[in-house]
Amino acid sequence: MEAEIIAIGSELLTPYRSDTNSLFITAQLNEIGIDVVSKTIIGDERERLINAISLAWERSALVILIGGLGPTEDDLTRDCAAAALGRSLHIDQSIIGTIEARFRSRGLRMAEINLRQAMVIDGASVIENPRGTAPGLWIQTDGKVMMLLPGPPRELCAMFETQCIPRLREVAPRSAIRTRVLRMTGITESAADEIAAPIYTRYANPVTTILTALGEIQLHLKSFGRDEAEALAPLHELSAQLETALGKYIFSTTGESLEEVVGNLLREHGAALAVAESCTGGLLAQRITSVPGSSSYFWGGVVCYDNTAKTHCVGVPKELIESRGAVSSEVASALAEGIRRRAGTTFGIGITGIAGPGGGTAEKPVGLVYIALAEPHGAHVLERRFPGDREVIRSQAAQAGLDMLRRALIGSKSEPRP
Amino acid sequence: MEAEIIAIGSELLTPYRSDTNSLFITAQLNEIGIDVVSKTIIGDERERLINAISLAWERSALVILIGGLGPTEDDLTRDCAAAALGRSLHIDQSIIGTIEARFRSRGLRMAEINLRQAMVIDGASVIENPRGTAPGLWIQTDGKVMMLLPGPPRELCAMFETQCIPRLREVAPRSAIRTRVLRMTGITESAADEIAAPIYTRYANPVTTILTALGEIQLHLKSFGRDEAEALAPLHELSAQLETALGKYIFSTTGESLEEVVGNLLREHGAALAVAESCTGGLLAQRITSVPGSSSYFWGGVVCYDNTAKTHCVGVPKELIESRGAVSSEVASALAEGIRRRAGTTFGIGITGIAGPGGGTAEKPVGLVYIALAEPHGAHVLERRFPGDREVIRSQAAQAGLDMLRRALIGSKSEPRP
Repeated sequence: MEAEIIAIGSELLTPYRSDTNSLFITAQLNEIGIDVVSKTIIGDERERLINAISLAWERSALVILIGGLGPTEDDLTRDCAAAALGRSLHIDQSIIGTIEARFRSRGLRMAEINLRQAMVIDGASVIENPRGTAPGLWIQTDGKVMMLLPGPPRELCAMFETQCIPRLREVAPRSAIRTRVLRMTGITESAADEIAAPIYTRYANPVTTILTALGEIQLHLKSFGRDEAEALAPLHELSAQLETALGKYIFSTTGESLEEVVGNLLREHGAALAVAESCTGGLLAQRITSVPGSSSYFWGGVVCYDNTAKTHCVGVPKELIESRGAVSSEVASALAEGIRRRAGTTFGIGITGIAGPGGGTAEKPVGLVYIALAEPHGAHVLERRFPGDREVIRSQAAQAGLDMLRRALIGSKSEPRP
Repeated sequence: MEAEIIAIGSELLTPYRSDTNSLFITAQLNEIGIDVVSKTIIGDERERLINAISLAWERSALVILIGGLGPTEDDLTRDCAAAALGRSLHIDQSIIGTIEARFRSRGLRMAEINLRQAMVIDGASVIENPRGTAPGLWIQTDGKVMMLLPGPPRELCAMFETQCIPRLREVAPRSAIRTRVLRMTGITESAADEIAAPIYTRYANPVTTILTALGEIQLHLKSFGRDEAEALAPLHELSAQLETALGKYIFSTTGESLEEVVGNLLREHGAALAVAESCTGGLLAQRITSVPGSSSYFWGGVVCYDNTAKTHCVGVPKELIESRGAVSSEVASALAEGIRRRAGTTFGIGITGIAGPGGGTAEKPVGLVYIALAEPHGAHVLERRFPGDREVIRSQAAQAGLDMLRRALIGSKSEPRP
């Protein structure tokens, strides 16, 4: 069974608001094996809305309309759905009773305009809304379902989960969808795909999508089956092959961020970390400390933007900075070793580089970053030249620092990028 | 001129990702008087995509396709747009040259699959992509425009702003939408609306919307006119009144972030800053250093998660931490004064608190944060109890620290929240 979602409301076509209800609904539908194949956002405009509903009803077995069920003039969903289905509307007395009771319990009188919310499309059944005045509607014919749901998330979510999903289970053919995301770093999208595509293209199920985020490549695997076991079998099979092929680049298969993975590894090893960062300006520390409980393995760090901070707080010799330059392999190493020594931790990470847009030279261009890891047995340094703007360079540098530590903790050294 | 946006990619139909590109594009289009009337999200599925493009091209003068221009097999947008338009594709040699050069500059070889990105629809012109390998395409016939743009926001945004908007200005009928955002902090949404609503409800044009972000309240003003002057007049009139009423809470009316505003003020005053942060874990330093050129006024900071870091790196007396507790007004003050003294800067900010989820007690609950500002004439401390989760508490604490400094720099002391 394939679903389409139509979110209705002019505010969803401004720069300030986006539809988030569909994410919740998609998660719920996937659980029972229903895929969302299209989402549409339409303003409070009669003709466009009728057309969109007609088209969706023609091509999809499940059509979910969200929003536009309020009491005001620009709430058009009931009328437009009726028009698209070629049906009439009638007033439902029991809904009026419910709405009146709701107002009464708050010491208010029902306004005349709320009568609109008691209009029901012929042949539809009502989906009760315990958290608001607008009830939902459920229309079912020839194995197809259309539902109209109110827009406020706390009304919609409760109604969908407790009333719509149980009804859909009875209508939809038994099936399940399971997903997995392989998160990688230290490899480009094209290099990852050159390794992965020969494997995943052999499978029609799971469906595989490759995506990039800042400093990260993700393989999204989505598997279908008549039940959970049948959906999981091909997912595990494909995932195992991809994990073997992409091994050390994969840092997570169960959703954790890189900083969570590194935190768990540090905790497992009973190890502690301190950082000294220049161009990343606190981003590395901020990511590490975004994980609850990080105080058990993270000592802290120094953001040494000014060179005197490198000297006073981390003990990098002034002469070294003068002779090699603040952005150099030697200073990165001295930052990592200096902070490790001062903090008395197992590991120290040092980062120095040029995030731009200013400050680059021909010899040391914007994007040049040195990332050092100090371990009990000494320090090693990576040189990277990141493309992109300030934000990207900083993100990639912090990512590389975390990955260098991850590799050390799992016993796989970092290497020049493929 | 009415626009439709189609965002392409199966990941946008999962519960994990939503389309945010269209928000940026909508803001840009509104600037030049173009309204967005529909948004559609389609997966990487050939037939549905061709149908969606055909339909949009039939009914709207401007069709914007986002995503699916990557080098891999599931990047279908070029092919499907060509099919919908009934046109062919050809290879563009100059694009191959650009992509090859891009890989070469990073010391890499262009992968075979990147050749797909050099395919151009017959009759289309190329929209250059200085930040990535996938160029965009621009198709214009009979006063209608279709454009294909890559999905990564940092590529798309730069291309749209610098290349598409100037071209659209020539095609679109003259009309103008002008917007202004008044960004505030240190006030709740309801308190801000109580002050602002009696003013903005007197205006049908501009339209005013109140929105909240992390630690921030925004008033969005949107004004319509036949040309820029006609759109700007009511915008200026309303904005001036709101600025008078909300005065010191407003930190920006022209888009700058709080860290940019603070950076500019520091530069104007010839002042410098250093920070010592505990519960914010580097977030404050990271925000300050996200601004290009911040090295001219930011010395750096210490992320003193461990108490020994507070003592060794900032000089907070061990006895003070033991007698008052790490989360106390006195320690916040000692952090701010200590880092200011060590760094030799004009200002020092110190933050200590409990970000949770663990670590709270009845006396010092999760959300309790002390924020101190050390100035040449002494230090003062604010005590805040922030609601929300770890991320919210950390954001609000960093925001409060920045706003405390902003208030000091403009000569308006921070005060207990209204």
